[in-house]
Amino acid sequence: MDNAVCRLTGCEFPLFAFSHCRDVVVAVSKAGGFGVLGATRFTPEQLEEELAWIDEHIDGAPYGVDVLVPETVDPRVADFADNAQRAEAISAQHRDFTAGLLNQYGVAVSPDEVVRYEGRAGITPENGFAQMEVAFRHPIRLIANALGIAPAEMIAEGKRRGIPVAALVGAKEHALRQAAAGVDIIVAQGGEAGGHCGEVSTLVLIPEVVRALKAAGQDIPVLAAGGIMTGAQMAAMMAAGAQGAWTGSVWLATTEAETSEAFRDKMVAARSRDTVRSRSRTGKPARQLKTAWHEAWDGEGSPGTLPMPLMGMVSEPAFQRIEKAVINGNEEARALVSYFVGQGVGLIDQVRSAKGVVQDFREEFAEAVLGLTSMLE
Amino acid sequence: MDNAVCRLTGCEFPLFAFSHCRDVVVAVSKAGGFGVLGATRFTPEQLEEELAWIDEHIDGAPYGVDVLVPETVDPRVADFADNAQRAEAISAQHRDFTAGLLNQYGVAVSPDEVVRYEGRAGITPENGFAQMEVAFRHPIRLIANALGIAPAEMIAEGKRRGIPVAALVGAKEHALRQAAAGVDIIVAQGGEAGGHCGEVSTLVLIPEVVRALKAAGQDIPVLAAGGIMTGAQMAAMMAAGAQGAWTGSVWLATTEAETSEAFRDKMVAARSRDTVRSRSRTGKPARQLKTAWHEAWDGEGSPGTLPMPLMGMVSEPAFQRIEKAVINGNEEARALVSYFVGQGVGLIDQVRSAKGVVQDFREEFAEAVLGLTSMLE
Repeated sequence: MDNAVCRLTGCEFPLFAFSHCRDVVVAVSKAGGFGVLGATRFTPEQLEEELAWIDEHIDGAPYGVDVLVPETVDPRVADFADNAQRAEAISAQHRDFTAGLLNQYGVAVSPDEVVRYEGRAGITPENGFAQMEVAFRHPIRLIANALGIAPAEMIAEGKRRGIPVAALVGAKEHALRQAAAGVDIIVAQGGEAGGHCGEVSTLVLIPEVVRALKAAGQDIPVLAAGGIMTGAQMAAMMAAGAQGAWTGSVWLATTEAETSEAFRDKMVAARSRDTVRSRSRTGKPARQLKTAWHEAWDGEGSPGTLPMPLMGMVSEPAFQRIEKAVINGNEEARALVSYFVGQGVGLIDQVRSAKGVVQDFREEFAEAVLGLTSMLE
Repeated sequence: MDNAVCRLTGCEFPLFAFSHCRDVVVAVSKAGGFGVLGATRFTPEQLEEELAWIDEHIDGAPYGVDVLVPETVDPRVADFADNAQRAEAISAQHRDFTAGLLNQYGVAVSPDEVVRYEGRAGITPENGFAQMEVAFRHPIRLIANALGIAPAEMIAEGKRRGIPVAALVGAKEHALRQAAAGVDIIVAQGGEAGGHCGEVSTLVLIPEVVRALKAAGQDIPVLAAGGIMTGAQMAAMMAAGAQGAWTGSVWLATTEAETSEAFRDKMVAARSRDTVRSRSRTGKPARQLKTAWHEAWDGEGSPGTLPMPLMGMVSEPAFQRIEKAVINGNEEARALVSYFVGQGVGLIDQVRSAKGVVQDFREEFAEAVLGLTSMLE
């Protein structure tokens, strides 16, 4: 395919695969799509290792990196300089609540073990900036940012190196602000998406953003994100004005993915209605598979969710313990197993290879287009 | 176009227009689409008049009727036989709250004037059944039902007369139940839709429902509803597996529509984020333009929303008073003006004729398909 997005990023088929797993990134890019490594959970040193591995295995195919540099920091945590200080601000009530919830499902943990963090990892501005520097040292063909306007440093450095900057948005106004700031690609993400998301659906958001950019004289390509699990849906969003698809959840059900077997089983079983948009994992609204964790944090008796990044310093170690408990044979703990996933989880009915998913997308895309064409005849 | 839906209903272009306004129904059907009159707000006698008018003006073009026979009745109102009894059950607290809210915006009403109802009108099983009988006396080519499984009487009568029965659903499981009950067309409506809706987005729901019906061996066409305001979006949903589009909000911004000038102004100004899914108008979750009404009923200090149909006996007269106040020059009351509308309101930027909307849809549809086709080359 030959459109603005393909030309900007060097991909053959504009299927962008966001994944925290380097194997998925490599497999997708080698199959003609475009892998994007989600960097958030890594320290800058770990990210360096991941990207070096990708460079070694990707055979020169184009790939990108997604970092999170939050534009605004919650006033409740603005005064803390590092994760050690942030950890201290997490109340005994929150620690007790978390330990109590895990204990209820047979996951042993005491309140003073609840909070954990690794070096600079996590969704903080300092980690985001450090990751950005690492990313720019590698032959990336895209750098993406979410949670607000892409930082000026990212846009300037992208321009200097000829690397397009993509920004994720969930509303028309945000797309216009990003365009004015100078980003090269808008990823418009609907409320059905996994992870951080807004409330407007992909089907409405795509034409709304495309139209608003055009009216503002901004000739910027838009990728559609949120709910896209098949090539037919990708074709649908391109019919609605997008120049490609940005996907995440579909890669979680691949053999290469970082997801656990317990979570993959849950994905295959889940319906589209089994997700929830909740602050209980990162501190900002993010869609994920709904479990007792979310019911507890969002329900009565909850101490209230914590601001980003404190919530992640509580939730991430908790979910690691939960996964470990399941592996060690604790069947009760399965009820808590969760991860970021969109409503599209209802369309997952098997685990495939990442390469196979790209091939399926291509075939479904072509079939959908031919099917539509035949309707005009 | 020639697909199962066109053959079942006799329409030329499978664009279904749900409207409470007979003029819209006639204009759409005459332009090659398919008008569907929403019957809920009429008494059976009024519906008879509306349909007689349509028969006289539609030049034999096919049209349909949409009734609401709620499958389940809230236990709080199950014992009441008619609207007079229901009205008595509305508490003084709810009457005071409503009057207080309207008074705050300069709309004069005393608590004992708050509740109003007209004969058998409203979303009640008895009105739904009476409307169904009226509808079947006219040369309709479709009868649609929402809020649960289509009643057995409707399905039997539809089969006897060769009139297809359509059912609106917001989840895969509901589609399977409707199919098992014998409906002929599934309208799968995403959470971005105006009016009663679920939470799964249209983009995810369409392939999920299409796939589930196929897996169940049910060869039933699916119409896509929710967020569709353009022919490009219609093409998109047909690429994703639908056989046509079911639309509502887009007709509210036509010159023929029943909407007030105040509401049309608000629609043109609104963004997709300006709607809310709330129980505060009918008692069941329905998407509508968000105003101070919804903030008050869904916020702190609210007495809580009432069950269907009690909520409508409070809200409908209130919204009539609000509209009247605006017409009489009360500018404050504009803040409360609202109506059922989907997130697609963000794509409304002008008021057009209903015929013009159908023509635009056809052109946009063809352009979108040709655009997609050129990508494959």
